[in-house]
Amino acid sequence: MTHAREMFASSPAPIPGVDTALLADTALAAFDCAQTCTACANACLGEPRLPDLVRCIRLNTLCADLCDTTGRLISRQENPELARAILQACVLVCRLCAEECERHTHMEHCRVCAAACGECEQACERVLSALPRS
Amino acid sequence: MTHAREMFASSPAPIPGVDTALLADTALAAFDCAQTCTACANACLGEPRLPDLVRCIRLNTLCADLCDTTGRLISRQENPELARAILQACVLVCRLCAEECERHTHMEHCRVCAAACGECEQACERVLSALPRS
Amino acid sequence: MTHAREMFASSPAPIPGVDTALLADTALAAFDCAQTCTACANACLGEPRLPDLVRCIRLNTLCADLCDTTGRLISRQENPELARAILQACVLVCRLCAEECERHTHMEHCRVCAAACGECEQACERVLSALPRS
Amino acid sequence: MTHAREMFASSPAPIPGVDTALLADTALAAFDCAQTCTACANACLGEPRLPDLVRCIRLNTLCADLCDTTGRLISRQENPELARAILQACVLVCRLCAEECERHTHMEHCRVCAAACGECEQACERVLSALPRS
Repeated sequence: MTHAREMFASSPAPIPGVDTALLADTALAAFDCAQTCTACANACLGEPRLPDLVRCIRLNTLCADLCDTTGRLISRQENPELARAILQACVLVCRLCAEECERHTHMEHCRVCAAACGECEQACERVLSALPRS
Repeated sequence: MTHAREMFASSPAPIPGVDTALLADTALAAFDCAQTCTACANACLGEPRLPDLVRCIRLNTLCADLCDTTGRLISRQENPELARAILQACVLVCRLCAEECERHTHMEHCRVCAAACGECEQACERVLSALPRS
Repeated sequence: MTHAREMFASSPAPIPGVDTALLADTALAAFDCAQTCTACANACLGEPRLPDLVRCIRLNTLCADLCDTTGRLISRQENPELARAILQACVLVCRLCAEECERHTHMEHCRVCAAACGECEQACERVLSALPRS
Repeated sequence: MTHAREMFASSPAPIPGVDTALLADTALAAFDCAQTCTACANACLGEPRLPDLVRCIRLNTLCADLCDTTGRLISRQENPELARAILQACVLVCRLCAEECERHTHMEHCRVCAAACGECEQACERVLSALPRS
């Protein structure tokens, strides 16, 4: 359904020493999280108890921007030090956003968003573990 | 594997009158195309016949940016006129990028990228057909 | 203070036949509008009468994304037809966002944001008028 | 010419304890760097000695994406720990991109781009110094 694995398999490894299937899956998880967080912010804006959701909307928006950038960056060749810095920022925002969404899991969109953030966080952690020491 | 369909199903319809599963699949196709074009530009930069690929890299980059924005925009509630304008721009850039990549299908990354652009173009066309007349 | 005019002056014209200083100023207006809309959405989320500002936040966010993409696209060489499509979408979202912000000009952030949207809209209109007919 | 200082002055401080004029100037420096790097990558693609510029184009593109995200993120209220992570990544990519562009200052676009990257790096460093300890 998506072309990420084929693309990574047909290209030189973006980050030398890191498995290309892992990078492909992480790029997908990052774009999936960006889409989910964008939609969650939009759904929160339509909720009757909107004032309780301000922090959720803020974190959704930050998480969407940072995951999008992460998905783009790991689709390109770059040095491990830079990959590490962006992946660490991405892990942090995914964790903050997942924690906030988990406080609102009576709303389906927050429940799904917490799951997407958790999967993106784990994928980024796996790449971080695989990065060569600089 | 992705959460787009669940998210769209749990939210008010971003564009009234348009099927939410279609919107979810189009958001996915747009982010998939953004990832693929980003990776194709990166792969082209590593090819020995780089000077032949300048137009491809330019179109990959434009297509990646516009598909990313399209994926974000259709994940939010908005008016049909604005959706129409961005989807039309997205269809155009996908067509131009697919045509250019098809001239280089002896390279696997361009072959895959042409496919991803074609799928995104078709998904956007389906949403355009479904938009209510303003 | 910014480097846009110097950059455009030192590069081949991104859109043949269009004055590079005009393109530089439009790229700046687009990024300025993206920043202003991002900050306006953030400020709206902190207002006591938040439920009245939902449409403003939605339009701020759409406008920020589209202006950002417009600023990037006109910084690159491309065909006039594609430039036309994205500039038309940008004009539309700037107009919608300015109209909404003008309903809330008792809040300084909405007053400033309406001005930034209006300037970006006018800059995009000037480039549209200068585009060669395809 | 831009509205960033007015916007930051009319909004609650995005990062408590950090001067809003400094944040406004840093957001501007980040968007200026994003624009400059985007234009530099585009100009490099038109140079006769293109194969010598591959690393420059890659770093321009990474720097454009990360600066754009940084400009957006510091326009919003967020926690200092997250601001620190993204600013550190931004400082790193600006330094790498400036170093590479400085190797090509016989081309005006690389000379201007090195300057824009250096100014963005310094602005981000100033915000990092001003961040409250978490």
